[in-house]
Amino acid sequence: MPLFDLPLDRLREYRPDRDEPADFDAFWSETLAEAAEHDLAPSFTPYDLPLTAVDVYDTSFAGWAGHRINAWLIVPRGAEGPVPCVMQYIGYSGGRGFAHDHLTWPAAGLAVLVVDTRGQGAHNLTSPGATADPHGGLSPQAPGMMTRGILDPADYYYRRVFTDAVRAVEVAESHPAVDADRIVVSGGSQGGGIAQAVAALRPSVKGALVDVPFLTHFRRAVEITGRDPYQEIVRFLATQRASADTVFRTLSYFDGLNFAARGRVPALYSVAMMDDVCPPSTVFAAYNHWQGDKEITVWPWNNHEGGGGFQREEQLRYVAKLLA
Amino acid sequence: MPLFDLPLDRLREYRPDRDEPADFDAFWSETLAEAAEHDLAPSFTPYDLPLTAVDVYDTSFAGWAGHRINAWLIVPRGAEGPVPCVMQYIGYSGGRGFAHDHLTWPAAGLAVLVVDTRGQGAHNLTSPGATADPHGGLSPQAPGMMTRGILDPADYYYRRVFTDAVRAVEVAESHPAVDADRIVVSGGSQGGGIAQAVAALRPSVKGALVDVPFLTHFRRAVEITGRDPYQEIVRFLATQRASADTVFRTLSYFDGLNFAARGRVPALYSVAMMDDVCPPSTVFAAYNHWQGDKEITVWPWNNHEGGGGFQREEQLRYVAKLLA
Amino acid sequence: MPLFDLPLDRLREYRPDRDEPADFDAFWSETLAEAAEHDLAPSFTPYDLPLTAVDVYDTSFAGWAGHRINAWLIVPRGAEGPVPCVMQYIGYSGGRGFAHDHLTWPAAGLAVLVVDTRGQGAHNLTSPGATADPHGGLSPQAPGMMTRGILDPADYYYRRVFTDAVRAVEVAESHPAVDADRIVVSGGSQGGGIAQAVAALRPSVKGALVDVPFLTHFRRAVEITGRDPYQEIVRFLATQRASADTVFRTLSYFDGLNFAARGRVPALYSVAMMDDVCPPSTVFAAYNHWQGDKEITVWPWNNHEGGGGFQREEQLRYVAKLLA
Amino acid sequence: MPLFDLPLDRLREYRPDRDEPADFDAFWSETLAEAAEHDLAPSFTPYDLPLTAVDVYDTSFAGWAGHRINAWLIVPRGAEGPVPCVMQYIGYSGGRGFAHDHLTWPAAGLAVLVVDTRGQGAHNLTSPGATADPHGGLSPQAPGMMTRGILDPADYYYRRVFTDAVRAVEVAESHPAVDADRIVVSGGSQGGGIAQAVAALRPSVKGALVDVPFLTHFRRAVEITGRDPYQEIVRFLATQRASADTVFRTLSYFDGLNFAARGRVPALYSVAMMDDVCPPSTVFAAYNHWQGDKEITVWPWNNHEGGGGFQREEQLRYVAKLLA
Amino acid sequence: MPLFDLPLDRLREYRPDRDEPADFDAFWSETLAEAAEHDLAPSFTPYDLPLTAVDVYDTSFAGWAGHRINAWLIVPRGAEGPVPCVMQYIGYSGGRGFAHDHLTWPAAGLAVLVVDTRGQGAHNLTSPGATADPHGGLSPQAPGMMTRGILDPADYYYRRVFTDAVRAVEVAESHPAVDADRIVVSGGSQGGGIAQAVAALRPSVKGALVDVPFLTHFRRAVEITGRDPYQEIVRFLATQRASADTVFRTLSYFDGLNFAARGRVPALYSVAMMDDVCPPSTVFAAYNHWQGDKEITVWPWNNHEGGGGFQREEQLRYVAKLLA
Amino acid sequence: MPLFDLPLDRLREYRPDRDEPADFDAFWSETLAEAAEHDLAPSFTPYDLPLTAVDVYDTSFAGWAGHRINAWLIVPRGAEGPVPCVMQYIGYSGGRGFAHDHLTWPAAGLAVLVVDTRGQGAHNLTSPGATADPHGGLSPQAPGMMTRGILDPADYYYRRVFTDAVRAVEVAESHPAVDADRIVVSGGSQGGGIAQAVAALRPSVKGALVDVPFLTHFRRAVEITGRDPYQEIVRFLATQRASADTVFRTLSYFDGLNFAARGRVPALYSVAMMDDVCPPSTVFAAYNHWQGDKEITVWPWNNHEGGGGFQREEQLRYVAKLLA
Repeated sequence: MPLFDLPLDRLREYRPDRDEPADFDAFWSETLAEAAEHDLAPSFTPYDLPLTAVDVYDTSFAGWAGHRINAWLIVPRGAEGPVPCVMQYIGYSGGRGFAHDHLTWPAAGLAVLVVDTRGQGAHNLTSPGATADPHGGLSPQAPGMMTRGILDPADYYYRRVFTDAVRAVEVAESHPAVDADRIVVSGGSQGGGIAQAVAALRPSVKGALVDVPFLTHFRRAVEITGRDPYQEIVRFLATQRASADTVFRTLSYFDGLNFAARGRVPALYSVAMMDDVCPPSTVFAAYNHWQGDKEITVWPWNNHEGGGGFQREEQLRYVAKLLA
Repeated sequence: MPLFDLPLDRLREYRPDRDEPADFDAFWSETLAEAAEHDLAPSFTPYDLPLTAVDVYDTSFAGWAGHRINAWLIVPRGAEGPVPCVMQYIGYSGGRGFAHDHLTWPAAGLAVLVVDTRGQGAHNLTSPGATADPHGGLSPQAPGMMTRGILDPADYYYRRVFTDAVRAVEVAESHPAVDADRIVVSGGSQGGGIAQAVAALRPSVKGALVDVPFLTHFRRAVEITGRDPYQEIVRFLATQRASADTVFRTLSYFDGLNFAARGRVPALYSVAMMDDVCPPSTVFAAYNHWQGDKEITVWPWNNHEGGGGFQREEQLRYVAKLLA
Repeated sequence: MPLFDLPLDRLREYRPDRDEPADFDAFWSETLAEAAEHDLAPSFTPYDLPLTAVDVYDTSFAGWAGHRINAWLIVPRGAEGPVPCVMQYIGYSGGRGFAHDHLTWPAAGLAVLVVDTRGQGAHNLTSPGATADPHGGLSPQAPGMMTRGILDPADYYYRRVFTDAVRAVEVAESHPAVDADRIVVSGGSQGGGIAQAVAALRPSVKGALVDVPFLTHFRRAVEITGRDPYQEIVRFLATQRASADTVFRTLSYFDGLNFAARGRVPALYSVAMMDDVCPPSTVFAAYNHWQGDKEITVWPWNNHEGGGGFQREEQLRYVAKLLA
Repeated sequence: MPLFDLPLDRLREYRPDRDEPADFDAFWSETLAEAAEHDLAPSFTPYDLPLTAVDVYDTSFAGWAGHRINAWLIVPRGAEGPVPCVMQYIGYSGGRGFAHDHLTWPAAGLAVLVVDTRGQGAHNLTSPGATADPHGGLSPQAPGMMTRGILDPADYYYRRVFTDAVRAVEVAESHPAVDADRIVVSGGSQGGGIAQAVAALRPSVKGALVDVPFLTHFRRAVEITGRDPYQEIVRFLATQRASADTVFRTLSYFDGLNFAARGRVPALYSVAMMDDVCPPSTVFAAYNHWQGDKEITVWPWNNHEGGGGFQREEQLRYVAKLLA
Repeated sequence: MPLFDLPLDRLREYRPDRDEPADFDAFWSETLAEAAEHDLAPSFTPYDLPLTAVDVYDTSFAGWAGHRINAWLIVPRGAEGPVPCVMQYIGYSGGRGFAHDHLTWPAAGLAVLVVDTRGQGAHNLTSPGATADPHGGLSPQAPGMMTRGILDPADYYYRRVFTDAVRAVEVAESHPAVDADRIVVSGGSQGGGIAQAVAALRPSVKGALVDVPFLTHFRRAVEITGRDPYQEIVRFLATQRASADTVFRTLSYFDGLNFAARGRVPALYSVAMMDDVCPPSTVFAAYNHWQGDKEITVWPWNNHEGGGGFQREEQLRYVAKLLA
Repeated sequence: MPLFDLPLDRLREYRPDRDEPADFDAFWSETLAEAAEHDLAPSFTPYDLPLTAVDVYDTSFAGWAGHRINAWLIVPRGAEGPVPCVMQYIGYSGGRGFAHDHLTWPAAGLAVLVVDTRGQGAHNLTSPGATADPHGGLSPQAPGMMTRGILDPADYYYRRVFTDAVRAVEVAESHPAVDADRIVVSGGSQGGGIAQAVAALRPSVKGALVDVPFLTHFRRAVEITGRDPYQEIVRFLATQRASADTVFRTLSYFDGLNFAARGRVPALYSVAMMDDVCPPSTVFAAYNHWQGDKEITVWPWNNHEGGGGFQREEQLRYVAKLLA
């Protein structure tokens, strides 16, 4: 993949205007309030694996509309007192996967709560998921989840997903092994988009790890990249032609730019210069709007794999320092 | 595409055992009874196009669970008394499209009712759809509709679709311009699968036009073709590994083989010998089980385009004779 | 497909210089005069389909050099007096297809004459053709028709095609059911390019419907798109290297820009912003040169499917008003 | 490419029935007689290249219907008396290419006559051609040359090509530097198919070099391979559906099996076991029908590249022995 | 991917003849003896990551010819006495990756030694490697490693790799935290092929975990699959045509069938029925030759991803029982 | 392929700054001096082919580190006294191929020495090679040869290749049939990059023929093209992330820009405007830095096939004039 977006020096200053609906905050506070009417009802069932260093809990809780959302809670065994917890949100198409694939944070002495993305994970060979999205949306949808319910913010798929994600923080806070004051949100791609949103909607978290975030700067994204999943939106618009204004209005309630502008906790971002799934200008646009302390790792030769394991090592060091 | 399935002489005799659940008929009669609790509530809104030879009605009705399903009803203008009606079900990914694309049957003096497939049509450039599937299913799903709710017959997507399709026949019957005693079901690929099902579930129809039907002989299909949409099921099974028995049990309630074995009205089938989307053995399997009068057009050099417009001319002649 | 051409505001003003040979008009008047030496000899054979609302004629006539060209003439049955007629020219690779696929205009009370493009239609699954191009061209050709005879304007394939298309208007005019004063030319892609040419060469027509036209602004097209069919020309130039000047001289006699500059009847254009087959700048270039009354529908999220059925509805309304 | 055709031991015995029209020989003798009515009119224009070891002639002659066919005649300079000559026919899509690419036989002391295939060579980057097929065929055609005129043996493209090829032998015989009694025909793929035909139609030649021949055993070929150019025929049949019998009747006049059964001169064949363009069973079918002395080189790990330069070395040795 | 290999019931009995050179054992004992002349010289450098549950050592040692091979040794912190150790060999193209990606076995109380495959890992985005293969081979090679040195068993790439892998077991044995009597070899695909070899060459290990093994039953593999990496061999044979016998002789020293026939420790295999990279018949061929206690997990709907995390859970349970 | 690089008028002036290490000349003089310690030891074995116009020698010599490098020396038979010689270097992935494919220069009265590129040619169907690169490099490598040893100039693959190529000139000079004062270097793509280097490192040569050179202006190339082989470097950098500075430092010793700036002999270049393998700006960058007399052929409609046989004819004429 060659370079295709703005050069790095312009990216560092790229801070586009945001399209923010007047009732953005009201929309989200009402959404969360509505969700709060359902008892969180977290369940933590010990998962039977011959592991000795951690306790694994097959976890579920009542997300948006009380729908059950699955997760793994993995806690280092033998800690003295509650430990910090990392919220792990998942990239597009994946689910929570296997508990034994999420042992990095526990090996560092932290708990991790790995949260399914509702409806996803049914065809992802490496990280299967187990959670339904029982609400099918009130309009037809292109394959994938990007356009489910996209004609109305109240009906849009990511309203449910972001709400689940915020509720999941409460799940972590509720567990006796977790120190509710030291929770960090994290994720890459879709997971990064979710982490951005949760950091804005649940400002009590202590930090955010946002890698090559998706769901950010939608308008530019759909205009400069020909790859999925952003193209799901273009395919929808190519047939549901009268709906473009409606679609972009809906997306304005979910755009990472608007969440980033509300981000006040310390954040570690990453961006890849050859990323044609989540183009670097869409990432820098969010980063440059972020209000809190922030750092960004630039990977000059990478596509959407972004920082991968290299970034994970950066995160281990960043979190160690942040929570020290 | 080379030939890849059984040779034609063996296909003509290929009549595999069927996997039919004991409560197949009960399942469907209960399903339809449950749907019948919702008032059909058809609406027929004149659609404003400068057409003079037909009346076009933007139609909707209460399908499964009362969800609104969209359709086009197109009636030749100036007929004396009610006319026969062709039910047109749609191929995978498409919707009812444009009214002006469905003028063949009206030009032959019949009405046509073109029925949306719920949830589909949002990315199909030539035949967009406008109907939601508000029920999202109780398990995660692979992109596409094949695996939505596939872990339980009661929750499976095609339970809702087939029910909508049966209800649509009632919509046609209810319209004063339609002769309720002369209704023919039709469709290609997914539409052919739906037509097979409706012919079994609503045996009062007068005939069935079934082209290269999909949703038929699932087990063989997923084993011999590597193409979508059957592969959606394989991708699901590749991650939701414990669910194969459950999945095939669900599918047995929806398999075209079991509907074909209940088909008693005259039927015109078509099959394409190089069709690697709906392999010819899966089509002949259904055809050979069909109980009514039947004919099949074999297209020796075609893939899934099947008979296309050629077959449409066959159908015009077949229906003219059938209803004469 | 992302946006790749000029932004819309610049497109609206993009009116490039044209490369027009001095004898452009002479070339075409001589060409048409030469064709006129062959008796038009139209034949209208009733086509046997059980349709009751229209009369279908399997039509042919003497095109360029007297070669027989096939067409469908479809006339609404029972009209009082002659009706207007839409000329339908076909997109690249297709033929006249099936009569029952062209019932929109007849349902609106107009006749339609659907004209084969000589030599095409032999591998198009949805709209097969039945007309030969008996003249093979005096130079080798790349697969496809773009480079047949491209070394000499007199030998170029589209000289024959455009001549056939003009002659087809005479065929329509000659039929008693058609009102020769109310003929509208139409087509998409290649068909749009043909319609542009006929509107200039047969200025007695009443209007033109030009969708995402091909064969327009060749020089820019071959430089900014990597897709067929424009790339057929590039592949030819890549081997027949000494011939570039000759090739572009030939193309200047056939470039839609030069026909558009002679277009004086009312025209309805369409353009798609993500069209990388017929890039939007090549379409606007022609539109901005058009001399008559004109409107253009801009489809912001579409590729070469352009307006499809949506545009067809626009056309129905536009023609109804035009001929009112 | 894995093995996909019959195993080698069965191939060695694979000698299928041939479908031969009763008037096969009459068809060809009349065709050649008709061509003979045109004066051969060979021209040999010295081609200006700074080569010192050979004389290069830009050659042309009157092929079928007197159309000019281009060729290169390359003769080793300084030979004492006439030299043997190899006829080189070209693979599909290519033309005679560059004179300096055909120096192998001259370096071995033989002349070579490299014959354009009419209409081809306009998009082949390595071997461009320069010869037109002025006859366009009397039916529409799929892109490529396989279906040009395929509805009538008299109109079929390869009738002209094979006639040109036979006439080319006369051109070689006519040149004073060539020993008319020692002419060998050769070619790979399409060129191999042509060489087979010429060996049957011009039995005075001394031998044939036939590599991975195309145009052989059409019926089986179109059924077992999904690759071009055989697929051009399938694409034609997929739309021109009523024409299958006609098509196969036409092909029976051109099938390499029928020419091979008339081959009486010594022949060196080659075949590649993983060739999915010209499957090995189609090659062995011809080879096993060949009547003359014969050898075949089997390349077990190759696709359609066949023997390439390795086989060329085999040919050099074979011809040296043959003409010794 | 459809099913393409033998059906399961025949696979369970598929035990083909093996092609084993007479000096197979001598070859390997000499190879290992030669390697043993180099001091193993393991180094264990603590790797600085903020992990608290494990000790990570950036490890290297002298492999074949004394070349330095890199590895991660990860040991659960705080164990009482030496712990068992799992040898982890890597799939084709990958390297040892990131230490934090290999925490499953340590979380189960075992050490893990993750061994680089020399020369690989330089383009694998998820598991980069850091080890050179300083020996370039004595013949040209196709891209990839499959044909490096393939003309001579002594020069073949996998001679060095398998030797490195056996030496790595000694590295594990040498570390004080590891219980040298409880070492289990493991790997998938290429790693499974290596594990098979090590289990035969180092029979003191306690067990083997072999997933969808590569490098097994070469002759059948190259004949029935068209996918890489087996196709690297075909591409080599397609040009280095005189070398086929030499190549297969070389491969006979490295074929998993011959190692499996020497496997005497308990083994857990896995196989995927739709695996067209390492076809199921090649896997069962080895499994059916294995001499020790054995179990095999069959994944009916999977391609080369095989068992993935599901199989990893099987392995955790199997090893817990094995070492109990 | 559309145009994608700078327009021609800007290319003609594009002369970017070069990144040249201070010890560039020292590095190469030491490298060549080191190589010179090995006896050249050329061997010329007559190759048995029934060719009469040339003498073919299967040639080898001691290249870098004394490794044997293979070549073809082909000399026109019967010349009076020594003849000029063209050095032919080979494009990426190919080897010296077949002697009978290199007869153009001999037919023009010159010898040709066709030099294998070590390690390449094992999967190139048209020009197989036969030379090993016994030095495997001291770091892992991405498939292909671009990154073998890329972490150190002394270890980089092209250090060995360029040294072999310079040594090959000495081989030509050493043969009695060759006129050592009239040697011309030539090649396309990789071969062009080698020829540039040799012209700078062996300034006694009489001229250079450089077609669409690869290995030139690395930094820009990897940023603007997404195609191989330049992308091999990007894939390496995408995993070996800490090494970018090291990699570009290594490449600065091998960049064609730095060799071109030292080119003082007459040179004939070629460039293709649609070449996305070796983009035109990278070619012009070198051409514009070349210090000697120079000409460039611009192919406006070609991709990386560049001038092909057309350019070969230009070369024949250029060389004839140069050596006249």
